[in-house]
Amino acid sequence: MDEIIVFHEQIEALIEEKRFKELKELLVRANAIDVAEALNGLSEKDLMLAFRLLDKDQAAEAFVEMEHDEQEMLIRGFTDKELRAVVEELEVDDAVDIIGEMPANVVARIIRSADRQTRSLINELLLYPADSAGGIMTPEYVSLNPDMTVDQAFEKIRKVGPDKETIYTCYVTENRRLEGVVSVRSLLIASKDTKIRDIIEDNVISVKTTDDKEFVAEQIRKYGYLAIPVVDAEEKLVGIVTFDDAINVISEEATEDIQKMTAITPDEHPYLRSSVFKIWKQRVPWLILLMVLSTVTSRIIGFYEAALSACIVLSSFIPMVMDTGGNAGNQASVTIIRGLSLGEIKVHDAFRIVWKEMRVSFICGLSLIPVTFIKVMFFDGLYKDADGIIISAVVSVTIFLTVCIAKLIGALLPIVAKTIKLDPAVMASPIITTMVDAIALMVYFVLASNFIPALAG
Amino acid sequence: MDEIIVFHEQIEALIEEKRFKELKELLVRANAIDVAEALNGLSEKDLMLAFRLLDKDQAAEAFVEMEHDEQEMLIRGFTDKELRAVVEELEVDDAVDIIGEMPANVVARIIRSADRQTRSLINELLLYPADSAGGIMTPEYVSLNPDMTVDQAFEKIRKVGPDKETIYTCYVTENRRLEGVVSVRSLLIASKDTKIRDIIEDNVISVKTTDDKEFVAEQIRKYGYLAIPVVDAEEKLVGIVTFDDAINVISEEATEDIQKMTAITPDEHPYLRSSVFKIWKQRVPWLILLMVLSTVTSRIIGFYEAALSACIVLSSFIPMVMDTGGNAGNQASVTIIRGLSLGEIKVHDAFRIVWKEMRVSFICGLSLIPVTFIKVMFFDGLYKDADGIIISAVVSVTIFLTVCIAKLIGALLPIVAKTIKLDPAVMASPIITTMVDAIALMVYFVLASNFIPALAG
Repeated sequence: MDEIIVFHEQIEALIEEKRFKELKELLVRANAIDVAEALNGLSEKDLMLAFRLLDKDQAAEAFVEMEHDEQEMLIRGFTDKELRAVVEELEVDDAVDIIGEMPANVVARIIRSADRQTRSLINELLLYPADSAGGIMTPEYVSLNPDMTVDQAFEKIRKVGPDKETIYTCYVTENRRLEGVVSVRSLLIASKDTKIRDIIEDNVISVKTTDDKEFVAEQIRKYGYLAIPVVDAEEKLVGIVTFDDAINVISEEATEDIQKMTAITPDEHPYLRSSVFKIWKQRVPWLILLMVLSTVTSRIIGFYEAALSACIVLSSFIPMVMDTGGNAGNQASVTIIRGLSLGEIKVHDAFRIVWKEMRVSFICGLSLIPVTFIKVMFFDGLYKDADGIIISAVVSVTIFLTVCIAKLIGALLPIVAKTIKLDPAVMASPIITTMVDAIALMVYFVLASNFIPALAG
Repeated sequence: MDEIIVFHEQIEALIEEKRFKELKELLVRANAIDVAEALNGLSEKDLMLAFRLLDKDQAAEAFVEMEHDEQEMLIRGFTDKELRAVVEELEVDDAVDIIGEMPANVVARIIRSADRQTRSLINELLLYPADSAGGIMTPEYVSLNPDMTVDQAFEKIRKVGPDKETIYTCYVTENRRLEGVVSVRSLLIASKDTKIRDIIEDNVISVKTTDDKEFVAEQIRKYGYLAIPVVDAEEKLVGIVTFDDAINVISEEATEDIQKMTAITPDEHPYLRSSVFKIWKQRVPWLILLMVLSTVTSRIIGFYEAALSACIVLSSFIPMVMDTGGNAGNQASVTIIRGLSLGEIKVHDAFRIVWKEMRVSFICGLSLIPVTFIKVMFFDGLYKDADGIIISAVVSVTIFLTVCIAKLIGALLPIVAKTIKLDPAVMASPIITTMVDAIALMVYFVLASNFIPALAG
């Protein structure tokens, strides 16, 4: 990773010393994606300068891979001719991605720079929601006719191939209806005059334009496809989504899930590039919400104030009871959330999950009883207390019951969320912790006030 | 998703009614990966029966995709001839994967069934750690010589292609040293007698056999490669890792990170297939460890017992102070952990991160002060208390300080972990929560005993 930093510093030094010939040599020898990364963080002037030294193909590839801030700087600095050259090389789905992140006046310039056909493709794709199959697909695929021969197919691939995102899977259509796929692998093996019809793979998995991009990525992962075809409501082929987009979706969705599980409003922007104010906006509403929800726990403790006063040692186990409950609940909820999001667990598995969690929580809780008892009695020194044994027992049983209840809630809430079409990921740590805290405290005080002699009397 | 369940039930019904001809038709028409999923959970006898109805290619593909339990059942049920047929069709990296999960006697049978060449390839791959590039690569790539013509290259691809994992990227080697790559796309565009040397792409990113599989997957994602070459210490090409393996690694690693962040020992086994005992083993050690660590918080509360007795209302805000601190700390730690694991954040960014978190936590904490004050005074009714204003102020300032400290700890710990080569993901929720709990309580009681008149006196 540090190679990129060295590369970045080399670029800065060469610009500083105006050694542009060496800079050009350095840049054109490098991988376009590394170039994009190394140019990040240059000043607008230096960025423009370095970018103009790139080869045409390399420039277009690097442009796609840059952060949106750099892309915007470049577009603003481009002459119309330069912009046209870059836009011409862009794949349509990348163009749509970039447009989605730019201010309106920049978007207008991009669209003006595209040729008529590209412009109409871009406009078509912009109609789909950004997180649907339609929003991430590209219409740049190779389509073949079932009556073509292998030789004709190769001819077409050679002709249209350079503009297509992938040529290795070709789509066989009749009147734009998807009939099947043919791989270049099978074309290479077949004899030249074989009809496409005879080597077609017609058992094709496709997705709909309206399918969620996460589902699309999951299908690509599951079937190991290079690309998956996207069809419209009339089963006509309108585009493909390729594996590289699927990898990015899977990685981004995991990040998003993790953010939601931690009570952060999801955002795709890299941390170091987000402004302090933006990070604050992602975090503070949740902190406030959860703090206000904690009114419940305050009330419970307030209600048992008399019991606490009479047996003040009880207060020192509040954090332990709460944290153990929270941890146990989160273990269950996060497992179920991730399972749901990978499709390993489905809503109709609810009974099996509950039954499994009941058993797991029972033996987890049971295992904690002796540990808790010993810890409270000896580590925390309650053996010195007259009611020590009873208090230790109350704490231990509280832990047992809390673990059982916490795991059940942790397992059930994400499923309930999914059933009512909420995102299960929001049913993770913070919400579970807040609920389990309240329950744990209730159990604790009810047991304490009934069994500890000083309080029961 | 529910299509698979319907499919599974159809299979069961057809077996029950002994309608094997229809079953065979149903199975051979289906996608092998769907078949694998639908056969999950059949009895050993039914599984064997259904599997024997599959086409040869389909059988091999379905076999690879099955859960390890089903694979083991099948291998135990196979005749030697059947096992040989399946093993022959396996890709070497899949064979190695399966071998890694089987008991020794099954492994011995698999290895015996492989032909000599495959056996030696398997044995070679088994020498690499399972989570290294060597452990997930396949030696089944197409290699070309730089002096070949395009026509000769196609001839070779046609001949060896069927046994290779991908043919679309071919590797140009001289004395097994990787000289560059050639894509089938560029071969198709070039004229027949062009020399490979002239269309070679020699600016190739490769990985080492010892590189971590997560790094390999990240390189494939970053560069959008179909496959990445793996070289040994002498820069000789020994295998490739393909994009489909990268997708799985990225998805599994995200799951693993999430598990560690929630204090669960990572495991790749799907939840519904893990035994209760196994899940217990993943979870209970952490619950015990964290519970024992909570001795610290108990001690702190114990130490301030006198203050608590004198002002019992303080106890009702313990959960709020602890939870807010935990939430704030986790927001920071999880952001940094994910950034590190995606490579967006590096260890040398530590100062920038700390400076950013200081500002974010300052304004988050500041925003919480009025909310806390109003909540405590009016929601929790402290306006009725003589010291109500002071207590509310103490709680608010505690929240402010706790948020600042929690975010700093949350941001720093993962970086420290990474620096000392620990996994940053273990520095998430539970550990942070435990540490922050202790600090929050200290701040709370120190402020309270100094500023609340009833205690300060």
